[in-house]
Amino acid sequence: MNESFSRPSPSYSLTLRIEYPYRLSALGQVTGVIAEHGGDIGAIDIVRSEREFVTRDITFSARDYDHGREVTEAVRQVPDIIILNVSDRTFLLHVGGMLEIAPKVSVKNRDDLSMAYTPGVARISQSIVEHPDDAWNLTMKKNFVAVVTDGGEVLGLGAAGPTAAIPVMEAKALLFKEFANVDAIPLCLDVANVDEFVQAVKAVAPTFGAIHLEDLGAPRCFEIEARLEELLDIPVMHNDQHGTAIVVLAALINACKLTGKSAETLRVVINGAGAAGIATARLLTTWGVRDIIVCDAEGALYAGREETANRVLDAMTDYVARTTNPRGVRGTLQQMLVGADVFIGFGGRALLSRDDIAQMNSDAVVFAMANPQPEIEPSSIEDIARVVATGKSDYANQINNMLCFPGFFRGLLDARARGVNDEMKIAAANAIADVIGRDELHEDMLIPSVFDRRVAPAVARAVKQSAVETGLARHHGAGVR
Amino acid sequence: MNESFSRPSPSYSLTLRIEYPYRLSALGQVTGVIAEHGGDIGAIDIVRSEREFVTRDITFSARDYDHGREVTEAVRQVPDIIILNVSDRTFLLHVGGMLEIAPKVSVKNRDDLSMAYTPGVARISQSIVEHPDDAWNLTMKKNFVAVVTDGGEVLGLGAAGPTAAIPVMEAKALLFKEFANVDAIPLCLDVANVDEFVQAVKAVAPTFGAIHLEDLGAPRCFEIEARLEELLDIPVMHNDQHGTAIVVLAALINACKLTGKSAETLRVVINGAGAAGIATARLLTTWGVRDIIVCDAEGALYAGREETANRVLDAMTDYVARTTNPRGVRGTLQQMLVGADVFIGFGGRALLSRDDIAQMNSDAVVFAMANPQPEIEPSSIEDIARVVATGKSDYANQINNMLCFPGFFRGLLDARARGVNDEMKIAAANAIADVIGRDELHEDMLIPSVFDRRVAPAVARAVKQSAVETGLARHHGAGVR
Repeated sequence: MNESFSRPSPSYSLTLRIEYPYRLSALGQVTGVIAEHGGDIGAIDIVRSEREFVTRDITFSARDYDHGREVTEAVRQVPDIIILNVSDRTFLLHVGGMLEIAPKVSVKNRDDLSMAYTPGVARISQSIVEHPDDAWNLTMKKNFVAVVTDGGEVLGLGAAGPTAAIPVMEAKALLFKEFANVDAIPLCLDVANVDEFVQAVKAVAPTFGAIHLEDLGAPRCFEIEARLEELLDIPVMHNDQHGTAIVVLAALINACKLTGKSAETLRVVINGAGAAGIATARLLTTWGVRDIIVCDAEGALYAGREETANRVLDAMTDYVARTTNPRGVRGTLQQMLVGADVFIGFGGRALLSRDDIAQMNSDAVVFAMANPQPEIEPSSIEDIARVVATGKSDYANQINNMLCFPGFFRGLLDARARGVNDEMKIAAANAIADVIGRDELHEDMLIPSVFDRRVAPAVARAVKQSAVETGLARHHGAGVR
Repeated sequence: MNESFSRPSPSYSLTLRIEYPYRLSALGQVTGVIAEHGGDIGAIDIVRSEREFVTRDITFSARDYDHGREVTEAVRQVPDIIILNVSDRTFLLHVGGMLEIAPKVSVKNRDDLSMAYTPGVARISQSIVEHPDDAWNLTMKKNFVAVVTDGGEVLGLGAAGPTAAIPVMEAKALLFKEFANVDAIPLCLDVANVDEFVQAVKAVAPTFGAIHLEDLGAPRCFEIEARLEELLDIPVMHNDQHGTAIVVLAALINACKLTGKSAETLRVVINGAGAAGIATARLLTTWGVRDIIVCDAEGALYAGREETANRVLDAMTDYVARTTNPRGVRGTLQQMLVGADVFIGFGGRALLSRDDIAQMNSDAVVFAMANPQPEIEPSSIEDIARVVATGKSDYANQINNMLCFPGFFRGLLDARARGVNDEMKIAAANAIADVIGRDELHEDMLIPSVFDRRVAPAVARAVKQSAVETGLARHHGAGVR
């Protein structure tokens, strides 16, 4: 666990059930101790109040696991207070999983059964045998997405494996349903290599309308996605790549509206040659940016750069090295920033200084998306950068792929799309950007909040429209949800 | 479609929306025509009633597709009647699929999000990395079953393929939820052979608490199940084999209570050497039956029987040939029935006559489960057979694996079982049989109705208990649901 938080977070919130002899000052003592130790008090509920004893549930947020324990121990030291129980709200929320299957039809009696199941269902199957596309009408395929991972690169945990990835994929499925009414399930794969991954997804594909890939890690993610796109007649999209790239592009589109700069003249520096960095470089190129330099821990990628002991250049990185950096410059990330218009950071070890930003072009745009700490503290450059965004909700302008994937897949499903293309990605980025009207657009209001309910439908419409226009839609109906 | 029905079935029900000029006799004319042509009228609703015109929805059940059209055409001939719309209720029921994903937690605000998703979910994943069995507590794995098929043998349709199998698997998932609160989803596999099937299921297994195999066809089903049992640490059960065998055994247990015969002395003839026939022979052997003869289209299986042009003996059939038929008799199904106590038929071409049944032992037990028509009409032998059961709901004593699988998997999940064994199967059969109390037990009340809500909990308790006793349970808690 390499996450840390400067402020208490509800993701580390504990509920203490305490019992104490009735006296007026007792509750105040407890809340005082919690606050004194930095706990952020939320709900306080009475469980039981008797003549002599009171039982209460007190919920507080801590900064992290150790801090939660420290506060709990401090409460334990308050005279006459007994802690009956400590519950971790995050764990309680996940007990038993976060999703269930809900029937849309009833099977309470023999008539129901004869239509939902045998013998009636045989006619539905027969209809699909005769007209395979009927599956899009007569089964859950129409709205069903597999959230697939091998647990190769889970959050900050690295190769956690398929089982430990389940709760993360459940969360993605939850967001799919909440924001875009997409029915999604986790499929966490126990596979040894790219071939096995591809074979497993190919095998399960008939049941689903689209495949969402997540937390795969580079460079495998590039090969897996490309092979599946080739094999399947439903869309496949790796969210860590394209979901992120699309939201970055959305933010950049709005940043250009603010600065008046255009794609063709921008100089963009991307730090990170993993899934997100490479996908962003590719999407920005397609959008029209001509001068992009991608850096990894060894500095700028350029055509002909040789491998080092630390860095084997896989095929995709090599491709990016050859198709970006048109001026063929070499050097460190810091050197690349001189005169750059845009910095896009996806973590890694590179921490930037105020001086680094000061060397950028005027109206500098800084997307510092490293986690848990941005590459540079936004408040330290607010006077020298025009626009700053991060990956975190603690600052203005959070770049989060939640803004993309639910609506994107809604659009794919509504179009019954056969695949994904760059036109759809750019259409989605524009849709996200356009949710912020010209009158709302501001340095601190670059992209919508992840809770902005306008985003997913706008993205869905744009993606469906683009699927129809580019010939990837099976379904051309006007019925955009 | 090789299903036909002697009586109208709701699985072929149509709703006609008709409009006619207002007069008292019009509705009577329409319903008269429907009844005259053999349609079974259900709901009649008023859609709109104006001064001169009335619009109504009239629902009727037909015997089959052609009969439904015939009745509709007859209604069209009634003077002044206009048919506005014809809807097939079975198709309507399946539009968009029968299942959806339902969130159990809310993600309406940032606090929710920080616990369900990042950063809180990283702690859940980390906990599973450190203690893999935590996945049984903290994810949906605990209650999640994959209903897996390759569409190799779907209902009466044969090798319909994975996509056409989706609605059937949805129906199974619906029954899982309705009868045992198990969260199940269809996984219809596009695979070319046994190896690919096994690999695909192995790959997806981490997400699930158990694997339900369905509609695979023999002999592949035997190898697939055996290899998956070996590879996985969760239960795998092929329903067409064991679900059916367990319900047959339940019926046989109660038949023995009625006839006073015991397993050891029974002579059992099974017609059909497919998945159900072979699994039934194996389970009955384990239960204690010593004299079983399995017949296929070529007659009795016996040790040393040679292959013919029509029948290649796969490894499992050969095994059954060697381990049944202790008297080594040879001949036709009809010849085997002479002196037999029990006939168990799983379809195929063999139609029995009253004379065949008359040659059986006294108190003959006849399970005629061929579909769509039983091997022999039950009413034709009611005076010479002691007990008759079929696979259909039109007669008393329906042997349907719906009685087994929802409760069986509930028990497996409650025990967090590592696998399935014969003890659990026999325990489940006894549990189903025992739902019919001694005072209820009767020749026409051999096994519970598929809607008997006592069945699934009883089966679940028995399976969990058996898992604990035989050392296959991860979870020994008393908390049987």
